[in-house]
Amino acid sequence: MVASLALVFQRFPVNEASMVSEVDPVVRVLLYLIVILGTAKLGAELFERIKQPAVLGELIAGVILGNLVLVNHNWIFFEPLRAAVLTDHAAIGIDILAKIGIIILLFEVGLESSVKDMRRVGISSFLVATVGVIVPFVLGYFVSALFVTQVPKQILAISPNFNIHNIHMFIGAALCATSVGITARVFQDMGRIQMLEARIVLGAAVIDDVLGLIILATVSAIVSSAEAGTSLSLLEIVKLTLIAVGFLMGALIIGTLLIPRLMKVAAKFKTQGLMLITAIIICFGLSALASEAGLASIVGAFAAGLVLEEIHFKEFASDVGIKDLIQPIAILFVPIFFVQMGIQVHLESFMVPSVLGISGGLIIAALIGKQACGLVVREKNVDRLTVGLGMIPRGEVGLIFASIGKSLGVVDDEIFSAIVIMVIVTTFVTPPLLKWSISRAERKAQLEKAKGK
Amino acid sequence: MVASLALVFQRFPVNEASMVSEVDPVVRVLLYLIVILGTAKLGAELFERIKQPAVLGELIAGVILGNLVLVNHNWIFFEPLRAAVLTDHAAIGIDILAKIGIIILLFEVGLESSVKDMRRVGISSFLVATVGVIVPFVLGYFVSALFVTQVPKQILAISPNFNIHNIHMFIGAALCATSVGITARVFQDMGRIQMLEARIVLGAAVIDDVLGLIILATVSAIVSSAEAGTSLSLLEIVKLTLIAVGFLMGALIIGTLLIPRLMKVAAKFKTQGLMLITAIIICFGLSALASEAGLASIVGAFAAGLVLEEIHFKEFASDVGIKDLIQPIAILFVPIFFVQMGIQVHLESFMVPSVLGISGGLIIAALIGKQACGLVVREKNVDRLTVGLGMIPRGEVGLIFASIGKSLGVVDDEIFSAIVIMVIVTTFVTPPLLKWSISRAERKAQLEKAKGK
Repeated sequence: MVASLALVFQRFPVNEASMVSEVDPVVRVLLYLIVILGTAKLGAELFERIKQPAVLGELIAGVILGNLVLVNHNWIFFEPLRAAVLTDHAAIGIDILAKIGIIILLFEVGLESSVKDMRRVGISSFLVATVGVIVPFVLGYFVSALFVTQVPKQILAISPNFNIHNIHMFIGAALCATSVGITARVFQDMGRIQMLEARIVLGAAVIDDVLGLIILATVSAIVSSAEAGTSLSLLEIVKLTLIAVGFLMGALIIGTLLIPRLMKVAAKFKTQGLMLITAIIICFGLSALASEAGLASIVGAFAAGLVLEEIHFKEFASDVGIKDLIQPIAILFVPIFFVQMGIQVHLESFMVPSVLGISGGLIIAALIGKQACGLVVREKNVDRLTVGLGMIPRGEVGLIFASIGKSLGVVDDEIFSAIVIMVIVTTFVTPPLLKWSISRAERKAQLEKAKGK
Repeated sequence: MVASLALVFQRFPVNEASMVSEVDPVVRVLLYLIVILGTAKLGAELFERIKQPAVLGELIAGVILGNLVLVNHNWIFFEPLRAAVLTDHAAIGIDILAKIGIIILLFEVGLESSVKDMRRVGISSFLVATVGVIVPFVLGYFVSALFVTQVPKQILAISPNFNIHNIHMFIGAALCATSVGITARVFQDMGRIQMLEARIVLGAAVIDDVLGLIILATVSAIVSSAEAGTSLSLLEIVKLTLIAVGFLMGALIIGTLLIPRLMKVAAKFKTQGLMLITAIIICFGLSALASEAGLASIVGAFAAGLVLEEIHFKEFASDVGIKDLIQPIAILFVPIFFVQMGIQVHLESFMVPSVLGISGGLIIAALIGKQACGLVVREKNVDRLTVGLGMIPRGEVGLIFASIGKSLGVVDDEIFSAIVIMVIVTTFVTPPLLKWSISRAERKAQLEKAKGK
């Protein structure tokens, strides 16, 4: 197996200058997909056998593939997928397939739930989201105050009176937003998407995204104006906030009213596969709209899943439901996202000692900060630890904060690496922790039930 | 509808210099997919209502989308998809999705058939393929002799004794190879993949691809050596031929022996979706291998479908067959290929008068040339016209010939445009002609049956 992999890797030398291989890009996409899907399933299988979530197996399969180059510097097959800016055609293709993958996953997760279900846990989700933003922000601020003691020179050069509190604020903000992809996969792997804790966390993650956007806009604006020596335009922040909140409300309200009518029209068509295509167009449409509103596109995909319900498809008089049709597409696309996420982990970034201090601090702030979330849940019979652990992963939202901070100059290379490591660690520790806490809560509930009898 | 489309088109201005839009590439991929899938289904629906194959509706939907820029020069939303060399990230993404689409289609078509079925019509397929290569070659040669009267100056500059017969030979060769995608879709749209004519044509198209490769290698080598003033290496041609034939034989023999064992191993895994992923890995693997052997990757996908049979999946003890799992993926991917094919048609190329003469000649040669195929079918009760019409589309194989000829200098811009127009016309006339001839043959068969009674 390893020998034949090595053969594949050396068979397709990548031109380092242009990062474009001599092999037809589409053929290289096929080769990438073969290796990615094959190792994803192998990783998932191994982890399921040791009672761990499949998604962790896929992530680690990706880390191994991406970092094979550390073992043998000739194994550069996956290097094009790891570039900071993708230029290789096949790598761009895989990147787009991966991003469609996470959209399909959130759509699938949304389909498992409904607007009604979400409304039932709405207040808890809102409280969880708010606490999950405030506490990590404060903790991140103090970690930064501990490790970052001076304003970078390039900022002082343009703005001599720049206040160091702005930097602490930005790092605190990078710890706020929850990335829902990992948590959703763990609940799905365990068949627990319907449980109360899952609904609270998913709802909170969506609200978190809106809050995170507002904080990012506010903090960026404060930093920009501090750098420029001008004051902050409150109007801009209010505008962004209204767009984001408006999108979510609009999508849910209009979606609920419009989709049954749209489906009635679509049911009159004769073409094969129209049910699936209509659902996918709604999913992609809301994803694009969410992105236009400044939110993560996956929030739109989740909203699309929420407003679409199995009943809308009854018109098509088919015995195959929409979930059955989306599932094979998800099986193909979703692992690409998680393996690609693993491939992009540069293990060598863990080896820099000066980064380890601040990243350790950020990781502790990130893990502890979200545990406060569990305390504000209103419902009884909810495992508060599961809610707190489900909110841990930071994912791409944290990375967006880091890269914006870098472009503003408040985040230097060391802090950037530290934030990246924090994102990686929060992503990788969540699946086993969450699986453990769900099982523990279910055992406890069974015991209490037995006692009650 | 048109007004809102116009809005979308103007909302996302494409930077003409870099061909990269300001909008996130993934979001633009989603927007492309929404418009492509939406109009594909609309086109398919309209054409099915007027009793035409759905695939023609998808092609024409693409032509309209791609050429909207002729109506209003601000509607450049699709321009990045029409560039000769794709540079825009979103366009590269769509291109790769489209090419995965045609691979999935041929895999699906292959699944509908089996090695045993193909062997039964093997001799007829071989005869059809051989005639379908020789006759168009000869006709194309004469059309070229009629229209091309002098060797291009840039060739004479490097090789004063260059024989003009080499050019005629190249143009003749460009008319040989059948592109099976369109024909397969028409048989599929009509639910006739199992009919004898379909099996003969599909088999012949695969053999055609091998013959086409040998001819391309031979003719290119002759032209190259004529340009260089050296003689042709026969060894090179024999080598390429053996690789291509060896691939097909090897894939079919090893596949038939190996896959049942592979499936027995895979059946021991517990992970969800392994049946589908295993099938897709086999499909992508044979596609990549075919491409490595110098064949079209879709030949590999078809071979993968042939060697995989429903029975192999019985081990998984699932009530959902592999065809049911591939279908939703095909519904999503396949229309992207046909719409993208339409988008890439530049209608303005039809307007150049000097091109119209030679393209008219080539179209006639291409249409008539393949009709000889029907005459050599050995089986009785076969509609010979359906076989001949099914062999008409030239598709991407003809385009590959044209572009290699252009790089060798034997195909100038006018001949190149003429070959492109020939490919477009053969692609667009096949669906209605084929549908008509299949219906006609079936009516005739019913009539004879009625008479027999």
